[in-house]
Amino acid sequence: MSVLERIEKIKGGITAPRGFSASGVIAGIKPRNTTKKDVAIIFSEQLAVAAGTFTTNQVKAAPVRVSQRNIKCGEAYAIIANSGNANACTGVQGVHDAQAMVQAVAEELGAKEHQILVCSTGRIGVPLPMPKMIRGIKKALKKLSPVGSKGAAEAIMTSDTVRKEFAIRLKINNKRVTIGGIAKGAGMIDPNMATMLAFITTDVAIDRVTLQRVLSTAVDQSFNSITIDGDMSTNDTVLMLANGLAQNEPLSREHPELEKFQQALNYLTRKLAHMIVRDGEGVTKFVEVVVRGAGTQRDAKKAAEAIANSTLVKCSWFGGDANWGRLMDAIGYSGAKVREEHVDIFYDGICLVQNGMRTKIPEPKIKKIVAKDSFTITVNLHLGNGEHTVFTTDLTEAYVDFNKGE
Amino acid sequence: MSVLERIEKIKGGITAPRGFSASGVIAGIKPRNTTKKDVAIIFSEQLAVAAGTFTTNQVKAAPVRVSQRNIKCGEAYAIIANSGNANACTGVQGVHDAQAMVQAVAEELGAKEHQILVCSTGRIGVPLPMPKMIRGIKKALKKLSPVGSKGAAEAIMTSDTVRKEFAIRLKINNKRVTIGGIAKGAGMIDPNMATMLAFITTDVAIDRVTLQRVLSTAVDQSFNSITIDGDMSTNDTVLMLANGLAQNEPLSREHPELEKFQQALNYLTRKLAHMIVRDGEGVTKFVEVVVRGAGTQRDAKKAAEAIANSTLVKCSWFGGDANWGRLMDAIGYSGAKVREEHVDIFYDGICLVQNGMRTKIPEPKIKKIVAKDSFTITVNLHLGNGEHTVFTTDLTEAYVDFNKGE
Repeated sequence: MSVLERIEKIKGGITAPRGFSASGVIAGIKPRNTTKKDVAIIFSEQLAVAAGTFTTNQVKAAPVRVSQRNIKCGEAYAIIANSGNANACTGVQGVHDAQAMVQAVAEELGAKEHQILVCSTGRIGVPLPMPKMIRGIKKALKKLSPVGSKGAAEAIMTSDTVRKEFAIRLKINNKRVTIGGIAKGAGMIDPNMATMLAFITTDVAIDRVTLQRVLSTAVDQSFNSITIDGDMSTNDTVLMLANGLAQNEPLSREHPELEKFQQALNYLTRKLAHMIVRDGEGVTKFVEVVVRGAGTQRDAKKAAEAIANSTLVKCSWFGGDANWGRLMDAIGYSGAKVREEHVDIFYDGICLVQNGMRTKIPEPKIKKIVAKDSFTITVNLHLGNGEHTVFTTDLTEAYVDFNKGE
Repeated sequence: MSVLERIEKIKGGITAPRGFSASGVIAGIKPRNTTKKDVAIIFSEQLAVAAGTFTTNQVKAAPVRVSQRNIKCGEAYAIIANSGNANACTGVQGVHDAQAMVQAVAEELGAKEHQILVCSTGRIGVPLPMPKMIRGIKKALKKLSPVGSKGAAEAIMTSDTVRKEFAIRLKINNKRVTIGGIAKGAGMIDPNMATMLAFITTDVAIDRVTLQRVLSTAVDQSFNSITIDGDMSTNDTVLMLANGLAQNEPLSREHPELEKFQQALNYLTRKLAHMIVRDGEGVTKFVEVVVRGAGTQRDAKKAAEAIANSTLVKCSWFGGDANWGRLMDAIGYSGAKVREEHVDIFYDGICLVQNGMRTKIPEPKIKKIVAKDSFTITVNLHLGNGEHTVFTTDLTEAYVDFNKGE
């Protein structure tokens, strides 16, 4: 892809773009873990335009409500985020607490409250320890650094085992534009944004409406196309700040290089989404499920998600067993239109099922593919042009073990 | 309940009602297990009226297609069923094979082909070993016995660990009426009929339309209200034969004692459904999830099933952890209308969540309930009169282990 060839991977995460600093500190929010960072701040020295996408869960955490309100103004100086406590199912007090977080940051920065966005992740239903939080925020503000991406990426981790950061550089109007991102995920990852936070910074100049549009498009093909266990969280949020310091001619719907920026953002968000899937709780395999030839795009999505969310299918991947019958079964109950006798299924391009029946491919050849730690399943329904891709994982005993307790 | 008080539990399963015989034999259909029964026949000496409910999966096994066609005539002498091979995703050959099973039984009994119903359960995508099957059918017909329920119940087992049989007796028009049933289930149990077979016999006199109606009602509140892993099978079938030998005044829509029969059938099907859930693969807990106060009955179902199918919720039950936050989360993404601040959640009647927030009930009190091997969770959404109950289980490491291989 010519656009992607002109994208350069660089270091520095969310502090790679000009004018951004960040930090992560230990505030003691994580209940039984006082040696891990849990409060992060991302700051833009220039007032940035802001866009966001939020969980579609009807039970929304307090910080989601506050950020959804603030982002309507479309501008921000900073994001304040914590791990260890989701501030969800905490009632009116929860909203007060999320607002107090915003207020504490706004006061110190001399910003307006609507210019601060807030996110939380962690255990549901426990009130935030506010004195600790306020001390943590002050500490984090003092530590803001132009190389602070790593600290912030660490401070938003919950059951994640690795920090997730990525940054790229491209040219818009011959000006150097940088995009950086950090994310956290692990358990409970599902399309429609699930226990997942991602923060993206860029120095591109762009108008607010266009920023929201490119972000939504990027999120659809990345964070909304991954699933580990089909659950959706109360807190999921993707926020993006663009501060304009690259001094390109501002991107708008008509800008000739908007598509180039979109491709770059798609690439970055997909990278972060894949990092989340690969770090899913107890996961041993990364599986790309492609459904083609569906009657509609919606049907393709239904079929792909039914496969990706079937516990039986996921268990068989863990065991290195193709068990295509479970795939047929999942497609059949997905709600997508299916004609059994038209279905083809490929494992890394090798046809195991043709016209709804097993081909003569020897079993060991297929077992070898499913034994790999990453493979692609392509289903062709031969009913139309609908296509959808989902990135998912196996289901392991370690996942159950991890999730059985608190 | 006064009707249930007048229902007497008896022995004998599907051969308890007058005029029924059954058998189960070893035919060698189970691939790596030639010491287990795998072919069952249920026979009514009197031509019976027949009713059935079938999987809603669009990928339907060959025997499902054949039985759905035959049952349109509404009469049957026999059911032929096998375990070890689902005869699903087997194309045109599969349909021929299912028809050959029907034909073999019809010939030996001197019945018409449409008077024989057929079911299969087991591995998907492998053609039936027909010579073995035909020999098995002949053997099973010779072994038909008025005490053969146990053998038939054993012959339909796959990953089931216990045989599932139940029978009851009641009076209709002062005549003794008996209803018997056998079932198989285990993995992949979900509402809308999943890898589940159930056969019900009765000597009641009833017209065909009424039989279908009472069966559908009973199935809805029993087999369609259970879920283990959210998957739905290609083969699920419930069949019911009523041969009229009780000589009651035939039950019809207007019959004053129809409701009594319905209650009895509900009771029997619910018993069989509970046996299936309790015998789910690797299951350690039996959980009743009741959602009340939903805006609509449909919303109640969505919310109850979202809870019952959440792998995170099920893992926490396995660990004896109430983790009500995961319940709130599941309700929130279920698609049912939810107002977080109205939600109450009870564990065995004890209120843990009120108005969307945790009450002051001490943690050990709740842990004690979730540690039990059977408990009830009641959610009140306080938005209307919609109510739905689902019976489900926890998700265990043993389940993953069981399902990872063939």
